[in-house]
Amino acid sequence: MIAEILTIGDELLCGSRIDTNAAYIARRLDLLGLDVRYKSTAGDNLDLLEEAINLALRRVDIIIATGGLGPTDDDITKKVICKVFKRNLIFHEDVLAEIEKRFAARGVKMPSINQNQALLPQGAGFLPNRIGSALGIVIDEQGKFFCALPGVPNEVEIMVDEELAPLLAQRPGNRVIIRRVLRTTGIIESALAEIIRILPKIPDGVSLAYLPSYRGVDLALKGTGTVAKEVQAAVDTAAGNLRQAVAKYIYTEDDRELEEIVGELLVQQGKTLATAESCTGGLLGGRLTRTSGSSRYYRGGVVAYADEVKRERLGVPETIIAQNGAVSAETAEAMASGVREAIGADLGVAITGLAGPTGGTDDKPVGTTFIALATPAGLTSEKYILGRHREANRERAVTIALDMVRKALLGLS
Amino acid sequence: MIAEILTIGDELLCGSRIDTNAAYIARRLDLLGLDVRYKSTAGDNLDLLEEAINLALRRVDIIIATGGLGPTDDDITKKVICKVFKRNLIFHEDVLAEIEKRFAARGVKMPSINQNQALLPQGAGFLPNRIGSALGIVIDEQGKFFCALPGVPNEVEIMVDEELAPLLAQRPGNRVIIRRVLRTTGIIESALAEIIRILPKIPDGVSLAYLPSYRGVDLALKGTGTVAKEVQAAVDTAAGNLRQAVAKYIYTEDDRELEEIVGELLVQQGKTLATAESCTGGLLGGRLTRTSGSSRYYRGGVVAYADEVKRERLGVPETIIAQNGAVSAETAEAMASGVREAIGADLGVAITGLAGPTGGTDDKPVGTTFIALATPAGLTSEKYILGRHREANRERAVTIALDMVRKALLGLS
Repeated sequence: MIAEILTIGDELLCGSRIDTNAAYIARRLDLLGLDVRYKSTAGDNLDLLEEAINLALRRVDIIIATGGLGPTDDDITKKVICKVFKRNLIFHEDVLAEIEKRFAARGVKMPSINQNQALLPQGAGFLPNRIGSALGIVIDEQGKFFCALPGVPNEVEIMVDEELAPLLAQRPGNRVIIRRVLRTTGIIESALAEIIRILPKIPDGVSLAYLPSYRGVDLALKGTGTVAKEVQAAVDTAAGNLRQAVAKYIYTEDDRELEEIVGELLVQQGKTLATAESCTGGLLGGRLTRTSGSSRYYRGGVVAYADEVKRERLGVPETIIAQNGAVSAETAEAMASGVREAIGADLGVAITGLAGPTGGTDDKPVGTTFIALATPAGLTSEKYILGRHREANRERAVTIALDMVRKALLGLS
Repeated sequence: MIAEILTIGDELLCGSRIDTNAAYIARRLDLLGLDVRYKSTAGDNLDLLEEAINLALRRVDIIIATGGLGPTDDDITKKVICKVFKRNLIFHEDVLAEIEKRFAARGVKMPSINQNQALLPQGAGFLPNRIGSALGIVIDEQGKFFCALPGVPNEVEIMVDEELAPLLAQRPGNRVIIRRVLRTTGIIESALAEIIRILPKIPDGVSLAYLPSYRGVDLALKGTGTVAKEVQAAVDTAAGNLRQAVAKYIYTEDDRELEEIVGELLVQQGKTLATAESCTGGLLGGRLTRTSGSSRYYRGGVVAYADEVKRERLGVPETIIAQNGAVSAETAEAMASGVREAIGADLGVAITGLAGPTGGTDDKPVGTTFIALATPAGLTSEKYILGRHREANRERAVTIALDMVRKALLGLS
C-alpha cells in the first residue's frame, strides 16, 4: 500500500517551524510495511489544501494529514475535509463534555473558543486524543484511507502509536519491509563508503543508504519483498558483510542512541559517570539524561563555563589554565579528574573547546576541542578540530565524549 | 514569484531523519518575498524524483532542491537533473583540485569516491561550498529557476545565506511580504486566542497564525501587498493591537530566543547567573550557552542528578530532602541558593522534577516540577504540573526557568 504524509500549516511553508511530525509518522508507517512515497506540505489556505488532498487521493491509497485542527481561525483542515469529502460539520455534545473535563482537571477554565473542537465531519471515524482537545478524523471509503491528526508533536506521537498504527496494522496487502540500521560514529561518510564498496555486492531487494549527521553516520539497510523469511535472510547477509568491515565504528544495530548504549555498558559494569563541561554548557549531561533511568549510572556534573568555576569547583590549578589556556589538553584532563572526584563517580568525562563562531586564534582555530576521560586507571585526552558552526561543534563534541566513554568501557583504544 | 522546496532522500520518507533543511530554506525564501507554496519530498528513486521535479516545474517558478549530491551510490540528484534538463555530466579538474585541497587541510587523504563530485551537469551554474565537497547546481532558463543544494544542514545554511539568497534577491517581481512575530510564553494558545478575538479586526492583507511549541506560542503576523509602506503600516497596526492586549506574555518581537533576551537583560544589569539542574540534566545550561558571548553573564552550574550531589555540591540539607523529597519547593529553593553561592553568581536558578515517563505518585504525578530562583533579594519557587512526555517536560521546564529569570530581571511578578 502506497502512503502520503501531508503536513499542514503556514508555519511549515514559511519555515518558522521544523516539521518533526512528518518524520515521526513516516517512521511508524514504514515499520508497518507501508510504502511512504510522498511527503508534502500545504499552508493554511483553503484552495491549496484542497488541491493537496485531491492530488494525494489520486496518487496514493493512504493519506495521513497532520495540523490545522486547533480551535483558532487559522485552523482550516476540517473545512477542507468537509469540502473534499462532501460532509457537514456536526456538533458532538459528548466531545465537548470531554474537553471541558480536561480543562477542569488542570484547574483551568475552558476558553469558549474550544467549543469549535466539538464540531466534527459527519460520518467520519474519530481517534481519541488523551492529552489534547482535538480529535483525529478518519474517512475510510472507496479504497482510500484518509486520516487527519492534530499538529502538536506530543499529541501526534501518542495518537499514532496508540490509535492510528493499530488501525493500519489490520489492513491487508502490506509488503514485507525489513530495516536494519548499523549506527556508526568516529568516521566520515565517504571513508565508510570506500571501505564498503569493495565488499561483496548487496543482495537483490536490499538497499543501503548512508545517513550522516553530527552524531555519526547511520548505515541503513532496507529489504523489500513478499516472503518475510527471504527478505530477512537477504538483510542478514548484507548486515553481516558490513559488520565485518566496519565493526569498530558501529555502536549499535538497534534503534538506540549512543547515550543509551553508554548507559547500558555502565549498568553492566556497575560504574557511574560524572561530566564536566565548558563549551557544551550542560548538553552532555542533557544527552545522558534523555534516557529514563539514567540515574542508575549518571550522578551529575559541573558546568564550568567561567574559568573560576573550573578552578573552584573542579580544582583545576590556576597555573594549568595560565600556562596552557582554558582550551587545552591539560585543562580538559584536570576537569575530568576534578569532576570525577568532586561528584564521586567512577568515570569523569570533560569537554572544553572553542565552539565559535568567534574567538579562534592561529594556534587554536574555532572548533578546537579537547575531550578528556578520567578513570581509576588514569587520564587520557584527545584533541579535535571541529568546524565553524557553534551548535554543530557542540553536538559533535558531546557525541565524541560519549564515544570515548563507550570505547573505554569496552577496552577499545 | 511562486516557489517550491523539494527535499530529497529516503531517510526523509522513512522518517529516520527530520527535515530541518526545508524549514531553513523556506524561511530565507520567505524573507526574500517569495511565495513558498509547496514543499515536497522525494526518495532516492530515479523515477519518483523525476516525477517530483517535473510536477514542480509545472506549478512554480522557483525550485530549490536539497539532498542527493553526495559521493555515494544512493545520491542520484545529478543523474535526474541530467535527464530532466537533458544534460551530460562533465568532469571539472578545478573542482577536483579544490576538493583534494580541502581534505589535505584537514590532514585526511581524499577517498577516491569523492572524485564523483567533480562531475557536474553541462552548462549549469555552480554555487561554491566552502565547508563541504558537493557544489550547488543552478539551471536558470525559460522562466524557471532550479537550484540543487547538498543535504548536509550546515552546508545548506551557509550556501543559502551566502550564495543562493543574493542570487534570488536580484530577480525582479517579488511581492512585498512583511512578517512580525510576537513571541509569548506562559500562556496556552486558546487562552491567547480568547483575548485576541475581542480585539479590533486585523487589517486586510494581514494574517495572524498561532504557532504553539513547548517554548511558548508565537503570534505570527504576515502582511502581503505591493506597496511596502502600506503593508508595513497594516502590520504595525495589527502588532500594536496585539501588543496592548497580551504585553505581559511577550518576551520579544525580534527573531530571537528567550535565552538571548535573558542574556541581554543580564548584560544590561551587569548581573551573572548560575544554574542547578536535576531532571533537565544540563539542558538549561546548554540552552543559555547556545548564545555566543554567553560567558559575559553565565558562569556555570551544577548538574545535581543524584541526591548526594544536591547535598554535597549544592549544600542542600539532608533533612530537606528527607522531609520533602528531592522533587519539592524546599529542595528547589535550596538548590537555587546553593548554586548561587557555590558558583558565585548574582542569580541562581534551579529545576527539579519528575520528567517521567515513570516514577510518579498520587501526590506527585509525572510532570511535577519545581523551579526556584535565588537573588540577592531572596528566594522564590513555583510548582508546575507538566505532561507525561519526558523530553517535552524537560524543554518546558527549561523555558519556564528562563522566563522566571526574565520576569525577575524586569521586576514583573
